[in-house]
Amino acid sequence: MEQSIRRPVIRCHESELEPVEDDIVVEYPLTIMLNGIEFATIVCSPVDVEDLVYGFLAAEGVIRASSDLKALSLDYKGGFAYAETRNPSPQAREFYSKRFIGSCCGKSRQSFYFHNDVKTAKTVTSRAVVTLDECFQLMEMMHSRSNCFRQTGGVHNAALCDRSQILAMRTDIGRHNALDKLYGHWLRSPIPLHDKLAAFSGRISSEILLKAAKIGVGILLSKSAPTDLALTLADELGITTVGFMRNRKCNIYTHPDRILPH
Amino acid sequence: MEQSIRRPVIRCHESELEPVEDDIVVEYPLTIMLNGIEFATIVCSPVDVEDLVYGFLAAEGVIRASSDLKALSLDYKGGFAYAETRNPSPQAREFYSKRFIGSCCGKSRQSFYFHNDVKTAKTVTSRAVVTLDECFQLMEMMHSRSNCFRQTGGVHNAALCDRSQILAMRTDIGRHNALDKLYGHWLRSPIPLHDKLAAFSGRISSEILLKAAKIGVGILLSKSAPTDLALTLADELGITTVGFMRNRKCNIYTHPDRILPH
Repeated sequence: MEQSIRRPVIRCHESELEPVEDDIVVEYPLTIMLNGIEFATIVCSPVDVEDLVYGFLAAEGVIRASSDLKALSLDYKGGFAYAETRNPSPQAREFYSKRFIGSCCGKSRQSFYFHNDVKTAKTVTSRAVVTLDECFQLMEMMHSRSNCFRQTGGVHNAALCDRSQILAMRTDIGRHNALDKLYGHWLRSPIPLHDKLAAFSGRISSEILLKAAKIGVGILLSKSAPTDLALTLADELGITTVGFMRNRKCNIYTHPDRILPH
Repeated sequence: MEQSIRRPVIRCHESELEPVEDDIVVEYPLTIMLNGIEFATIVCSPVDVEDLVYGFLAAEGVIRASSDLKALSLDYKGGFAYAETRNPSPQAREFYSKRFIGSCCGKSRQSFYFHNDVKTAKTVTSRAVVTLDECFQLMEMMHSRSNCFRQTGGVHNAALCDRSQILAMRTDIGRHNALDKLYGHWLRSPIPLHDKLAAFSGRISSEILLKAAKIGVGILLSKSAPTDLALTLADELGITTVGFMRNRKCNIYTHPDRILPH
């Protein structure tokens, strides 16, 4: 399935109008059926859909390893993914998107607001370090690889990197989906993460930060802004966050010891 | 509650590091309890939260008018909104985020993928017209009004406008929330919409387009890109979509008859 399609468009500059054709990014509704029950409907880019299902189910706490899925089949035309877990997981469904009401016992993990996150987001003990120059280069590599963005201006990218190169990159119209696809790819082809980092085109919200923690990556680079809740979680979970990476400038927000000036 | 907080940050340019303080946008988890049952948890900016609850419940098909809510109380500190509907609405909960499986009968509304949307998104018969110059000016007004974005780079704006001015504007870290807040504001202080337009800072995805249709506004201006599914829905629902509004340029995608060259 194509990630973008041609459509007639009227291009305007000041009061000049010109009919042209333009590339428009495709949005694809995908319903995940889990053990025969409707679990969630996501709108996404129709590429790397298997990775998305693996990553989404892992982020929601339904699976922890790719072997936890017994079967996955796709009805591309209809927009359905049929996933079967090795062990039925009623608890995951029960707690899916359910608010975690913190008990009174101590400060730890008060920032979590979903049940699944409390179970699945782990403190990262990564030994990765990276220089600022390497960070700038990785963001440039990600941007220059993203053909779909250049054509349509409408997708986000997430990449798993070492200090010198991009090891895997996934793309989607949704920030969350791009990171879930990367998570799913990693689950299906795991590599050690203690010296890896993630590069990301979108805002670092709490949900994005929690996904990075679930994947287990210690450094998160982004082109955009973080939120205060994401930074509180990054402090707690041991993740280095770097935002506003543009024109060889950036801000380091949390755990700066992993970023070397040169 | 504040929309942004000060935080220590290390600002970097090339290999120069400078410790500074910066404004970080606040992200606030809000759980909506509907008639005593947990309905949804949203992360949002902690401002205009009542508008958000009204707009979210309307977008989800739970209410149609502000009078459908009998009571709404907020626990700001805990992050809970307690909403009570005049009539219990079990169907809304049953179909919340449930996939709409189109039957075989004809083309109409095949693009809808959620049950609630089929019930609530209506074809817009707006008689609004606007010149390109007015469009550019409205987007500039929205941008210059958005103090929080200038400080933090992390929020979206949605505004209800007539041809010459912004009538109401709402802000949130989430695209969807910004539009839901505007919807909620309109439900609580309705004005005729046949000659109004909406200005928006975020991408026009199908969900954003459907919200515009539910509000009932005929023209949607955006700084960003649309998706193909959003444009298919805009074609069907009679909505004029204008994207990539930057530097007095833009693209008109659907129903261009409402946009006048001058």
